[in-house]
Amino acid sequence: MRRNNETATSPRPGLSLAWDEGRVLAVDQRVLPHEHRVLRLETVDQLVDAITSLAVRGAPAIGLAGALGVALSAHRHTSDGRTDEASVKADAARLSAARPTAVNLAWAVHRAVGRLADGPQAVLAEAMAMLEEDATANRTAVVRAADLVQSLAPDWPVRLLTHCNTGRLATAAVGTALGAIIELHERGRVAEVLVDETRPLLQGARLTAWELGEAGVPYRLCVDSAAAAAMARGMVDCVLVGADRIAANGDVANKIGTYGLAVAAARHGIPFVIVAPESSWDRELADGSGIVVEERDSSEVTEFAGVEAAPAGAAVFNPAFDVTPAELITAIVSEAQVFRPHGSHSTSYPGEVSA
Amino acid sequence: MRRNNETATSPRPGLSLAWDEGRVLAVDQRVLPHEHRVLRLETVDQLVDAITSLAVRGAPAIGLAGALGVALSAHRHTSDGRTDEASVKADAARLSAARPTAVNLAWAVHRAVGRLADGPQAVLAEAMAMLEEDATANRTAVVRAADLVQSLAPDWPVRLLTHCNTGRLATAAVGTALGAIIELHERGRVAEVLVDETRPLLQGARLTAWELGEAGVPYRLCVDSAAAAAMARGMVDCVLVGADRIAANGDVANKIGTYGLAVAAARHGIPFVIVAPESSWDRELADGSGIVVEERDSSEVTEFAGVEAAPAGAAVFNPAFDVTPAELITAIVSEAQVFRPHGSHSTSYPGEVSA
Repeated sequence: MRRNNETATSPRPGLSLAWDEGRVLAVDQRVLPHEHRVLRLETVDQLVDAITSLAVRGAPAIGLAGALGVALSAHRHTSDGRTDEASVKADAARLSAARPTAVNLAWAVHRAVGRLADGPQAVLAEAMAMLEEDATANRTAVVRAADLVQSLAPDWPVRLLTHCNTGRLATAAVGTALGAIIELHERGRVAEVLVDETRPLLQGARLTAWELGEAGVPYRLCVDSAAAAAMARGMVDCVLVGADRIAANGDVANKIGTYGLAVAAARHGIPFVIVAPESSWDRELADGSGIVVEERDSSEVTEFAGVEAAPAGAAVFNPAFDVTPAELITAIVSEAQVFRPHGSHSTSYPGEVSA
Repeated sequence: MRRNNETATSPRPGLSLAWDEGRVLAVDQRVLPHEHRVLRLETVDQLVDAITSLAVRGAPAIGLAGALGVALSAHRHTSDGRTDEASVKADAARLSAARPTAVNLAWAVHRAVGRLADGPQAVLAEAMAMLEEDATANRTAVVRAADLVQSLAPDWPVRLLTHCNTGRLATAAVGTALGAIIELHERGRVAEVLVDETRPLLQGARLTAWELGEAGVPYRLCVDSAAAAAMARGMVDCVLVGADRIAANGDVANKIGTYGLAVAAARHGIPFVIVAPESSWDRELADGSGIVVEERDSSEVTEFAGVEAAPAGAAVFNPAFDVTPAELITAIVSEAQVFRPHGSHSTSYPGEVSA
C-alpha cells in the first residue's frame, strides 16, 4: 500500500487518480488526448464537479474518487483530533449522488464512511486500500477475460470491438474491457480493434484510441452506428465492453449504445463479453428494470468544441446509459468469476481454473 | 414545366436545386442550419466537387444535380449549333462516378445523356422534366407512406424515429421519409419525432432537425446509439428512413446506421418503413451483396468543425452506407407501390387503393 502522506505532482504514470498531501489529483479526461492536465482538487465541491462534468469518469474510477473525496472531507472537517462526522456524512451524500447509474460510486463512498469513527487517516487508508484492491482485482479480471476470449474465438488473430473507455483512465490499473484487449495484444492475439467513437462525449475517439495507440495495439475508429455494419461484414469476432451497474440476473447498465451493440452481436452470433469488477454488481437489484439511467445536458449532443451543430433550442434525448438484458450477454467477467447469464451454460469456461 | 431560360437568384423556397442561365444553383448543405449559402456552379468540376463534398446530398437530389450537370456540360460544349458529344459524355462519366452508392445519380445522368443528340436545350429540358417528375413522385409517395403508417401504427398520436436527412433538401419537393413525417404531422398524427444526429456529418442534427423545426413538428435529437434504447423504452412506434439503392429483392442501402436501427426495430416488433422514389430501385441487382458502399475520408470522423477529436493519425473505418436485408424491412414505399419484402404479406395495405 502507498504511504498515506506520500506526495506526488501527478498520479502515477498511466493512472488517473492519486492523493497528494490533502488534495486529490485527477487526470482531466475532458481534454485528452490533446492536453494532459492534472486537476488538483482541494474541496469536495471541486471533486463533485469533476465527477459530474466527467473530468473523472469510468465506473471504477468514480468510485475511487468518491472514496478519496470522503478522505478529503474528513481531513477538512477534523481539528484538534475531533472530526465533525455530520459534515463529512453530508459531503459523502453529495459525492454518492454526483452520478446515479454506476453503483461503484455509492458503494465506495459508503465503505470509506465506514471508517470515519477512526479519524481521517483511517478513512484515507481505506480509500488507498480500495485503490490497491481495485488494481489487483483489475489485473485478475483482465487475465481471466483474455483467457475467455481465447476460448470463445479460437481463430487467431481476433478482431475485437469495444465501446466507450474502459482503460487505465477509468480504473486504478490496466482497465477492464480495454485491459483485456491489451492483455490479448500482449499475447500476440489481436489483429485489430474497432473502436466506437462513443457519442456524445467521444470517450472512444479521445481516450480509448489514445490508450490503444500508446500500447501499440492496431485499431480503427468508427462512428457508433457503423458497428452493426462491421459485424455484418464479418469484421468482428468478439465485443468487449465494461459495465456501470450489473443487476443480480446479469442485466448490465453501460454507456449508451451498448444495448444496440448487443442486439447486433446476437444477430450475428458474435460473443458479447462484459468485463467489470465485483464492485459493479448490485445484487440487491433483481434485474435491470430498476436501474436509474442518468439523462445529461442537451449541450453534450448539440455542441462540439463550443460549436453548435443543431438548430438553436433543439430538444434532446440524452440518456448516458442503457440497459442490456442478460439474455444478450455471453459472459460477465470479474476478478472473482465468469458469470454466464444463459442458464444452459456453466459458470466456468474451457481451461478455466476454478475460482 | 419550368421554362428553360427561367432565371433565379436562388432555388425556389424550400428547394435545394435550380437552373439559372447556364449555372446550377444549389443550397450548400454543409453549412446549414447556421448559414444559408447558395452555390453558383458554373462548371462540371464545381458540380462534381459539390456532390463529393456533400454540399449537394440526398439520393434524389444528387441524381437531379447530375442531370443538371449534363445540361451544364452540353451548354459549355456547344458552339455554332454543334455539340462536342465526346466531351459531354466524359463529363457525364465523371458525374456518374462522383458517388458510387446511390443508383439515382447514374440513372439520371444516363437519362440526360440520352437527349444529347437533340442539343443542349433538349438535355436541359430533360433535366427540368426530371425535377418536376421527382417532385410529383415525391408527393405521391409521401401520401402513400403516411397512409401506410396510419394503418401500421393505429394508436395515435405516433412516436416516429428517423435517421439522416430525407427532406426537401434531399429531393425536388417535400422529401421522402421526412416528407411522410411532415404529412403525418399535417394530419395531426405525430406526437414526437426522434431524430438520430447521424454521425459523422450530422445530417440529422443539422438538416432534419432544422426542417422539422421549420415545419413545426415536435422532435428530439439523440445520438445514433440511443435509438435502440429508445425502442427498448417503448418510445418509438415506427421507423421511417430513405434509401440510396434498393436491390430487386428489397435489400436497401442507406446511410450508415440504418442497418443497426433495423435490427433493433425487428427485435422490438417496430415497423421499419423505407420511403424512396422508383428511381432508387436497381432491379439489375438481385440482392444487396452487389451494392458498392462508399468509404469516405477519415477526417469526417476524426475532426469536427476543424477541431481534432481523435489522436493524430488515428486509422478510421468510415463507410458512408450500410445494407439492410429485406427480411428486416416492413415495407418500401414509392410513388408506384408499397413493396412488402416478406413473402407472406401482400403488396397492398389495409385501405390502400390499388396502384
